[in-house]
Amino acid sequence: MKRSCVADVLANDSSKVLVKGWVHNINCVGKIAFVHLRDRTGIIQIVADESMVRDLRLEMSIEVTGNRVVNGKAPSGVEIHAEAVRILGTVYYDMLPFGINRKRINASLDTQLDHRTVSLRPARSRAIFRVQQEIEEAFRSYFREHGFTQIHTPKIISSATEGGSEMFTVDFFGRRAFLAQSPQFYKQMMVGAGFERVFEIGHAYRAELHNTWRHLSEYVSMDVEMGFIESYEDLMDIEEGYINYLFRHLKSACAAELEMFGVSLPDSVEIPRLPLAEAQRIVLEKYGRRSPLSGLDAEGEKLFSEYMKNEYGTDFVFLTKYPASKRPMYTMPDPENPELTQSFDLIYKGLEITTGSQRIHDYEMLKSNMEKFGLDPENFRFYLDSFRYGMPPHGGFAIGLERITMKLLDLDNIREATLFPRDIKRLEP
Amino acid sequence: MKRSCVADVLANDSSKVLVKGWVHNINCVGKIAFVHLRDRTGIIQIVADESMVRDLRLEMSIEVTGNRVVNGKAPSGVEIHAEAVRILGTVYYDMLPFGINRKRINASLDTQLDHRTVSLRPARSRAIFRVQQEIEEAFRSYFREHGFTQIHTPKIISSATEGGSEMFTVDFFGRRAFLAQSPQFYKQMMVGAGFERVFEIGHAYRAELHNTWRHLSEYVSMDVEMGFIESYEDLMDIEEGYINYLFRHLKSACAAELEMFGVSLPDSVEIPRLPLAEAQRIVLEKYGRRSPLSGLDAEGEKLFSEYMKNEYGTDFVFLTKYPASKRPMYTMPDPENPELTQSFDLIYKGLEITTGSQRIHDYEMLKSNMEKFGLDPENFRFYLDSFRYGMPPHGGFAIGLERITMKLLDLDNIREATLFPRDIKRLEP
Repeated sequence: MKRSCVADVLANDSSKVLVKGWVHNINCVGKIAFVHLRDRTGIIQIVADESMVRDLRLEMSIEVTGNRVVNGKAPSGVEIHAEAVRILGTVYYDMLPFGINRKRINASLDTQLDHRTVSLRPARSRAIFRVQQEIEEAFRSYFREHGFTQIHTPKIISSATEGGSEMFTVDFFGRRAFLAQSPQFYKQMMVGAGFERVFEIGHAYRAELHNTWRHLSEYVSMDVEMGFIESYEDLMDIEEGYINYLFRHLKSACAAELEMFGVSLPDSVEIPRLPLAEAQRIVLEKYGRRSPLSGLDAEGEKLFSEYMKNEYGTDFVFLTKYPASKRPMYTMPDPENPELTQSFDLIYKGLEITTGSQRIHDYEMLKSNMEKFGLDPENFRFYLDSFRYGMPPHGGFAIGLERITMKLLDLDNIREATLFPRDIKRLEP
Repeated sequence: MKRSCVADVLANDSSKVLVKGWVHNINCVGKIAFVHLRDRTGIIQIVADESMVRDLRLEMSIEVTGNRVVNGKAPSGVEIHAEAVRILGTVYYDMLPFGINRKRINASLDTQLDHRTVSLRPARSRAIFRVQQEIEEAFRSYFREHGFTQIHTPKIISSATEGGSEMFTVDFFGRRAFLAQSPQFYKQMMVGAGFERVFEIGHAYRAELHNTWRHLSEYVSMDVEMGFIESYEDLMDIEEGYINYLFRHLKSACAAELEMFGVSLPDSVEIPRLPLAEAQRIVLEKYGRRSPLSGLDAEGEKLFSEYMKNEYGTDFVFLTKYPASKRPMYTMPDPENPELTQSFDLIYKGLEITTGSQRIHDYEMLKSNMEKFGLDPENFRFYLDSFRYGMPPHGGFAIGLERITMKLLDLDNIREATLFPRDIKRLEP
């Protein structure tokens, strides 16, 4: 007989069924046993003779053949009266590291991350990654529909892209190489190579020395780069379009998961755009908090998001025109004030989830900006040289996949949105 | 005015248009100039007064406004009579590294890879990556439709997965770590974590000391892992299903690109499965070539593919039951002959593009197999421990994205199917 998933057994009328999954719960009442079987789609009650389940232990993987019976008293309205129960994968433990058949896991996040194969078994833990998959899927479909090509660029690189600090070093056949902090140079080059519009979904690496709720040493970056733009407003337009597309997609693809997390998404999102200096002024005047030159600090982002939520009812805000001295050397200066740049961050529920800008596309201008930043153009030769051949006006941005997942589901720690997080303290599992 | 892409101008009747792209060619006949403008979608002829294009040089990026005119003598039947030509991105070169407006680029692959922003500009070079994107897209849709969840697993890892040779080392906050050769351990753990069926598309790393036409140090691996299987035949079934799905998808999504490379794909593919020993016997008897114990060598794969093509008309063959001593320690032994394994390779046009197997799912069996392989289970503790909690029967495989792209388009070198290849000699661009 062919295996049926639990969701199918619940939904479809069939008499005899074969299900496979894990032993979520066991309860014996006299000679009758009630076993909850959990698979990737749901949980169903198995009713069996006590003798048939005597060898079962929690979290064994099993298969059950039996008859589907509608029973209003069963937790999901349908149960299976077992004819045969077979153990597929046995267990080797004295005690589970923590219980996983209650409403919540009663263990610290660290302990859960140490036992990822166990802590992800409850539907709620896995739902985070179902939503994450759909965030990525929506990203891909949206940008494909807009004429973007998906690319893969190298993560082992010869030179520092964003200044050089916080990079992991790799021994590359005896040469010192680095793990890429972003695909920045390569995505720009691929715009110039004639793809015009590219996106990449791949790992990015930051050797962050501090261990916070919002930083990872290895994360998934959803990168966009777009040629022949008129101005950096085009970039914010297309990102705003994505956010709207994403919310519509999640409402239909992840309705159950959003409900599980008590999240309701607006039907449409209009994202205000205002200069960083204005946001810094508001944070100072309303909350008495002074911001660093480079932007808002973590607390400032939170306060300013509160303000925007209260005043304008929005979870999102684009901050624009960051100071040139605090953005990377490839950022296009503001035509009205060269101390500022045509750049932006997207703040979502108090956290920066995107950094973007128009880039310098003229060879001489880029070269002299490198020098202004105290960088030696020779160290960026392969990148700089690609600007000799008619690089069009272009710009782009990146969205941190784990960050947007965390904020969307109101999680407390970015590690909950990562299967196997890496940080200064964690290299395993 | 809004920019139109070349393909739209060719296809749609409109009078006034604005196009943007690169100067592909310039020809002046007296006072009249013919400029070929190339964008990501095609090439169109611009007819202009010679004075308007005096400053143009090959590969500048420009925008042109003008009138769309049908002209049977124009290369694509439609041309634009320019009213204004504006330079968007200028050039800084004495000579292009190689010409790119002829049928083929007249430069070695190495030179082309050194100037990737230039060598990818001809439509033919970029078409490879359009096909590659669709190979990946088909992979994702097919496995999603079959209930698989996409995952991202860490590439910075603490221990060697496949034996320990040929790994790049990373300095991870002062600890010695490695770049993952495959997501093997993690995808298995995610099957056990309740996802049951997972796939990952991500980078994998091999510190290959030899430099061949079919090896890369950094490549994209399309990985699959599937729980609750009956046998490793299930894995070959699902991969065969993918190949058929892929070919159908490419015929509709990439018809133009396939034609460009002179590739015609069969309507359906049935992949023969036969034991490695049988293939080795045929290679010996028909071609007088002795194979290594571990499988076929590169030449043997080619010869055997020739044989299968001639005898059975197939480009694909699954070789099965590789010797246990030559497969990784987690490979499930063959129940009939424990010297062999429930494993397979998929050979496509003379090249292995997939390795797969059923895995050992029992904790004690896995542990004792590690010991049999001379490995210390303590070094794999986080992996091994996840087998204590009811790991179901499972297995999986991986497809090398660049390899399948190369073979599908009959390319000579895997580097043609990689934007920025990494090998022992190449860390830039």
